[in-house]
Amino acid sequence: MNQLELMRALSMPGETKLVLMVLDGLGGLPGPDGLTELEAAKTPNFDALAKRATTGLSLPARPGITPGSGPGHVALFGYDPMEWEIGRGVLEALGIDFDLGPNDVAARGNFATVDAEGNITDRRAGRIPTEEGARLVERLKQIELPGVETFVKVVKEYRFVLVLRGEGLADGLTETDPQQTGVPPLPVEATRPEAERTAELIEQWLAEARKMLSDEEKANSMNLRGIAKVPPIPKMPDLYKMKLGAIATYPMYRGIGRLVGMDVLSTGDTIESEIETLREHWKAHDFFFFHVKKTDSYGEDGNFDGKVHVIEEADAALPAILDLNPDVLVVTGDHSTPWSIKAHSWHELPTMLWSRHIRPDQVEAYGERACMLGGLGHIRHYDLLPLMMAHGERLNKFGA
Amino acid sequence: MNQLELMRALSMPGETKLVLMVLDGLGGLPGPDGLTELEAAKTPNFDALAKRATTGLSLPARPGITPGSGPGHVALFGYDPMEWEIGRGVLEALGIDFDLGPNDVAARGNFATVDAEGNITDRRAGRIPTEEGARLVERLKQIELPGVETFVKVVKEYRFVLVLRGEGLADGLTETDPQQTGVPPLPVEATRPEAERTAELIEQWLAEARKMLSDEEKANSMNLRGIAKVPPIPKMPDLYKMKLGAIATYPMYRGIGRLVGMDVLSTGDTIESEIETLREHWKAHDFFFFHVKKTDSYGEDGNFDGKVHVIEEADAALPAILDLNPDVLVVTGDHSTPWSIKAHSWHELPTMLWSRHIRPDQVEAYGERACMLGGLGHIRHYDLLPLMMAHGERLNKFGA
Repeated sequence: MNQLELMRALSMPGETKLVLMVLDGLGGLPGPDGLTELEAAKTPNFDALAKRATTGLSLPARPGITPGSGPGHVALFGYDPMEWEIGRGVLEALGIDFDLGPNDVAARGNFATVDAEGNITDRRAGRIPTEEGARLVERLKQIELPGVETFVKVVKEYRFVLVLRGEGLADGLTETDPQQTGVPPLPVEATRPEAERTAELIEQWLAEARKMLSDEEKANSMNLRGIAKVPPIPKMPDLYKMKLGAIATYPMYRGIGRLVGMDVLSTGDTIESEIETLREHWKAHDFFFFHVKKTDSYGEDGNFDGKVHVIEEADAALPAILDLNPDVLVVTGDHSTPWSIKAHSWHELPTMLWSRHIRPDQVEAYGERACMLGGLGHIRHYDLLPLMMAHGERLNKFGA
Repeated sequence: MNQLELMRALSMPGETKLVLMVLDGLGGLPGPDGLTELEAAKTPNFDALAKRATTGLSLPARPGITPGSGPGHVALFGYDPMEWEIGRGVLEALGIDFDLGPNDVAARGNFATVDAEGNITDRRAGRIPTEEGARLVERLKQIELPGVETFVKVVKEYRFVLVLRGEGLADGLTETDPQQTGVPPLPVEATRPEAERTAELIEQWLAEARKMLSDEEKANSMNLRGIAKVPPIPKMPDLYKMKLGAIATYPMYRGIGRLVGMDVLSTGDTIESEIETLREHWKAHDFFFFHVKKTDSYGEDGNFDGKVHVIEEADAALPAILDLNPDVLVVTGDHSTPWSIKAHSWHELPTMLWSRHIRPDQVEAYGERACMLGGLGHIRHYDLLPLMMAHGERLNKFGA
């Protein structure tokens, strides 16, 4: 029995409250004083929790593998991320709060510049401003395809999303981006027979779109990447017999939550507003995914102090969560974004699990080095959810 | 996606230099003073590296499983050793620098003594000296088989290698050694239809060989073991987009390197000459497999002090490697060969990983006990190569 079947078979309803607090890109590497971002941050509340919790290092995907935001989160939600891949187009659509359905095929679009011969001269169309992208998207909305609905949405600068909606659409399609200049975009090709009609429709859309924009100075062409459908991922309410709420300030994370069957709970832009949302919905849900975004953003910027500051903000919010008296609380990150790498990385995540049933360890602070010696040892992200369920008294015994 | 597919998909070329230093049979067990061979050795350079590195214990195969040299090494090269088995005949051929091709079937031969009834009286033919084995091999070279080339090569004492080369040969063959005396050798039998012709050819060779040697006093018969082809193992340059060099003083390790697509770099008999080879080829390769043999040999002899001495020699060579300024350096062993067991064992390997991107741990010495508390925790040999790739900035992100 694989893990999801096991969860479906053993999970049972309950009254307990489970909170998964995810500091995006939390994991770090030593800074100027030899301490990581988390080690350098003043986190009296996290440290006090570490004393009472059991801790460890959690691996998002596989040793050495750097996950994107999709894999990092589905793993935290209990899915093997190598098995449940979410396409780039789907993530991009989720990132603008587009509500993707099961009959939708979504692609990430990049406006590009081509020369008179049709060879790409700039894969990002001179990084046109977002309002310029919005104007182009309005033009592209006029394109109609036979038998399917199309949606074109601006994302940011040269990026847009294309969604085709209709019966019988399939993914399994190649990308058009040749990843270099001086050559034309590649055709969209089906990698399996079911996708042939979809490939033709997208090629037709691309032909019309390029013709339509041929008078543009910069964005006179485009590439499509990560053309994908929403994976047929089993939904968390069925698997875990819980009502789940997603609290996140950025649309992509709300979207991933929605994808796995969470209710998206409306919130503001700050950790304080997220806490307020948590309070409001505390009674109505069993499980809360509580996402803090800016740790990752500062990590990507290489801003050590900025990341430290967000960690301290999250630490300051912890007492309000504890005041709600959760039965199970996990604090972790989806992946590492060390300030020194300025990008996602493969490093494990310092992780704390607290409930009244945990086995305490000797770790007394929340940090990468401290958690190396924790009672959870080295675990996989997708094992955290079964552990939360067990500690929340929501899993039946296996076998007699 | 399995690990090799993942590596093929995510690996990218780079400028970084990766060094894998393997002390054969490194892992040990406590000696007279309660310290293992590695703990007892004076290793100021390894210890200094341990302070800067992240450390752990690495498992060659599975818990409790003692690997041969083949599995121990293929695991270090990133292959699951339970999936990619290298036959004994293949290893024996590699061990005498025989360049096996894809149409070759190789067997390890053992000269044996049989009585007038054909029952084995000595499975090792009285351990005849090597020159005697060489004389017999010269006789056996006269045997010809229809449609295939044959090679017979002396290895050492009563051991030889038989290689059949030709189209359509297959492995999947039983061994002739009954592992006891008083009974005749077993016939070679095909365990799958494709191998039937090969079984017949080998049986024909054995019949002629036994007839030819029937006048010999001791070595009047022989057994064949581990009859195998080179496995269709994906090559490391394709998987990892690196140019790899193997530096080893013993042919078997060069052979395993060649098998997985490494360039074998000519070297001498000493660690110093291996360092010299590393220096010479530093610019031309991305990855170096640097093998130190004698730790294992002394372990097999039960010679505690001898093994300690080789570890100290390897320690003395470390600064020369560091002077080359590698981007990633791993120090480990292929398997344990504790002096007290006098053989390979199943114990994990003390392992250090250094790069500018590692997460430091609190371990300050290189030894079995120290590494138990290391930041890598307990890992598998075959996860070391993905970790080296990640730390060498040679893996793309997985998923968006």
